[in-house]
Amino acid sequence: MNVDADRLRADIEATAEFGAIETNESESRGRTVLTGSEANRRAREYFVAQLEEANLDVRVDAVGNVVGRWTPDSADPEAAPVAAGSHLDSVPEGGIFDGPLGVYAALEAVRAMQEAGIEPARPVEVVSFTEEEGQRFADGLLGSSVAVGERSVEEALALEDDEGTSLEDALDPIGFRGNGRLDASEWDAWLELHIEQSERLESADVPVGVVTSITGITHCEVTIEGEANHAGATPMGDRTDALAAASEFVLDVERATNDVVSSQSESAVGTVGSHTVAPNATNVVPGRVELGVDIRDVHYESMETIVRRARQSLARLERERGVETTFQRPFDLEPTPMADRLRQAAHDAGERAGIETLDLHSGAAHDTMYVAGVTDAALLFAPSRDGISHNPKEWTDWDDCATATRVLAGTLAELAGA
Amino acid sequence: MNVDADRLRADIEATAEFGAIETNESESRGRTVLTGSEANRRAREYFVAQLEEANLDVRVDAVGNVVGRWTPDSADPEAAPVAAGSHLDSVPEGGIFDGPLGVYAALEAVRAMQEAGIEPARPVEVVSFTEEEGQRFADGLLGSSVAVGERSVEEALALEDDEGTSLEDALDPIGFRGNGRLDASEWDAWLELHIEQSERLESADVPVGVVTSITGITHCEVTIEGEANHAGATPMGDRTDALAAASEFVLDVERATNDVVSSQSESAVGTVGSHTVAPNATNVVPGRVELGVDIRDVHYESMETIVRRARQSLARLERERGVETTFQRPFDLEPTPMADRLRQAAHDAGERAGIETLDLHSGAAHDTMYVAGVTDAALLFAPSRDGISHNPKEWTDWDDCATATRVLAGTLAELAGA
Repeated sequence: MNVDADRLRADIEATAEFGAIETNESESRGRTVLTGSEANRRAREYFVAQLEEANLDVRVDAVGNVVGRWTPDSADPEAAPVAAGSHLDSVPEGGIFDGPLGVYAALEAVRAMQEAGIEPARPVEVVSFTEEEGQRFADGLLGSSVAVGERSVEEALALEDDEGTSLEDALDPIGFRGNGRLDASEWDAWLELHIEQSERLESADVPVGVVTSITGITHCEVTIEGEANHAGATPMGDRTDALAAASEFVLDVERATNDVVSSQSESAVGTVGSHTVAPNATNVVPGRVELGVDIRDVHYESMETIVRRARQSLARLERERGVETTFQRPFDLEPTPMADRLRQAAHDAGERAGIETLDLHSGAAHDTMYVAGVTDAALLFAPSRDGISHNPKEWTDWDDCATATRVLAGTLAELAGA
Repeated sequence: MNVDADRLRADIEATAEFGAIETNESESRGRTVLTGSEANRRAREYFVAQLEEANLDVRVDAVGNVVGRWTPDSADPEAAPVAAGSHLDSVPEGGIFDGPLGVYAALEAVRAMQEAGIEPARPVEVVSFTEEEGQRFADGLLGSSVAVGERSVEEALALEDDEGTSLEDALDPIGFRGNGRLDASEWDAWLELHIEQSERLESADVPVGVVTSITGITHCEVTIEGEANHAGATPMGDRTDALAAASEFVLDVERATNDVVSSQSESAVGTVGSHTVAPNATNVVPGRVELGVDIRDVHYESMETIVRRARQSLARLERERGVETTFQRPFDLEPTPMADRLRQAAHDAGERAGIETLDLHSGAAHDTMYVAGVTDAALLFAPSRDGISHNPKEWTDWDDCATATRVLAGTLAELAGA
């Protein structure tokens, strides 16, 4: 089975042109592709054209998920298909590999199987989910949330962007509000190839990662309320400085996470990523800070340890600094293990092709998180230079794209019963 | 000499109506009076009417400073006048005493002298400076900066607000772009009565404060640059988290200031008041924090100690956390001592009237800071309930307003050579 590296590269580079942004540096290519934009329309139309070129049957569901289905003569059309894909949207000024690599690797895998005369027993589907990045309508994983039944078609279509435009009204004009609902639970298996967005493959000099588990994610919203006051006229002893308290909290979360990393689970991460001070004037003692905390690990217990220590920190700050605090946890997803059967198939495919593979976990969320809730799923990684993503500097060497696609194609072929 | 408490209150309450805002609580009265607004025009016109009612000669200088001059028959018209006043503008949603108390106390002092048949040897001037609060055109002390020659009339008139409107174009339509330049160096002495904006008078149960010194003020602008990265995919050990570093800096500034307070100068204050994180998303490791630091004391050496320790903190964070930092000090004013001759006159006036007075310093900036650079100046304080200012909750009891005005009137009379 021969993966055509040039054809794969041509698809990714063509897609990189839609919503392309200017960048200063060479080897730095960025794009902005938000749901419903002209760039999104062109990226989707190009994808449909390539699916049709490969003789796949294309359907678009009501929330804009695009599927190309290959039902070879060898396959039972009623058999549960195996599916692979990713997404075509990007963050603002994002990179060209995050999403498109997985979509076009899946298509290239089908083309390779077709050309090699492989005869799968199951249909194979190539998929692009709507708005994985969550930059316009939702927090992310929009299309896959509908495909697994986490969110109804109606709820999804009614989602509005900051200007009050609904998803329905964004998909209509670009011609991608289709019919029905892609149902991921009908798949026998799902595979996604994605860039790693981290440096473990690069450090280990291994071209393909096989994800063991996608980390759980907890988001906490914290407010710390002190007393805004005149910076000149308020003696140090009379202050209830919300920023000083928040600074202790930030360092407590960092310390708690480092303690967990060294004693409990080295994959744990804890981040205070958002932090907004009011009134935020140099000459006013800060009265209020709002913080957003992101906690992830492949072990839910260690996430819970960090959450518990964050809450203990707030209780201490209330006692010692007289601030008032609130703590909410609006988002909490447990870790998602990948299917052993599929992981084994990926390692086997690597071994057959003489390509080294490495077990690792994913710290980032992917559509595969949702899909794994309704069918067997696996996630493969290609190396990311310096671990950079969501940035025009995001880069994966073309050879690495092709190598990972070879493993994806081998895995798909095995799962499809070739 | 009899200060008319009701007349003083009527002037302050009339002024409180211009730009009045709705507040929920009783005993809470707020106003928004920005330079050139309709509220500012009405506050100025009311002031001019009261000056004329008291037979003072009114002039308005090119930047809108308003002066009413009383030249009684007893006075040498060529003698250097004594002057008193404050400002009529406010911060957005500020209180009703900050500024107007000093303006109308000065006018009431003149009316009391007139009615008591006091015969000063010098003319007496009642002054309202343009934009003390610095909410539209400058950083503050705008009118007084021109009156002392820190800023030329032309520079001041060319200052623009956020919409690109110049001071000239803001004063013209309200009829307060006058002629010439009020020259504070021609005064023999200057007095300002202001609310304390702190709790020392209230705690000591003393009705009038005599300021020994206005604190120096240093503003520092600090940036801390780390590396923005994916909160899920970046292991703890691979991070250069700008917010964690900034949190250490905030606590270092607080600790340095507390050390200075306990060992060197108990009036020192250090505040990190502004603090802006980028990209400020819950799921991104912070890449950059910009901070604004405000350091004040009546002793310049202790301010320097805090600045030095802030810089040491940044150097340590560069070493230990790998961040890059910048430090600038765009604003630095040394402490301003008040004139001994005037302070003594104020204490004497209190003693003659049987009113207790207390030496204290001012942690807030006032127009008097500038005036003290060109002539003898003093600053008196009336108590502020709970030390609150720049807030509709700002409050000074009407009795306290009148009591402080009696001391101001007695001081002015003595300085004017009555």
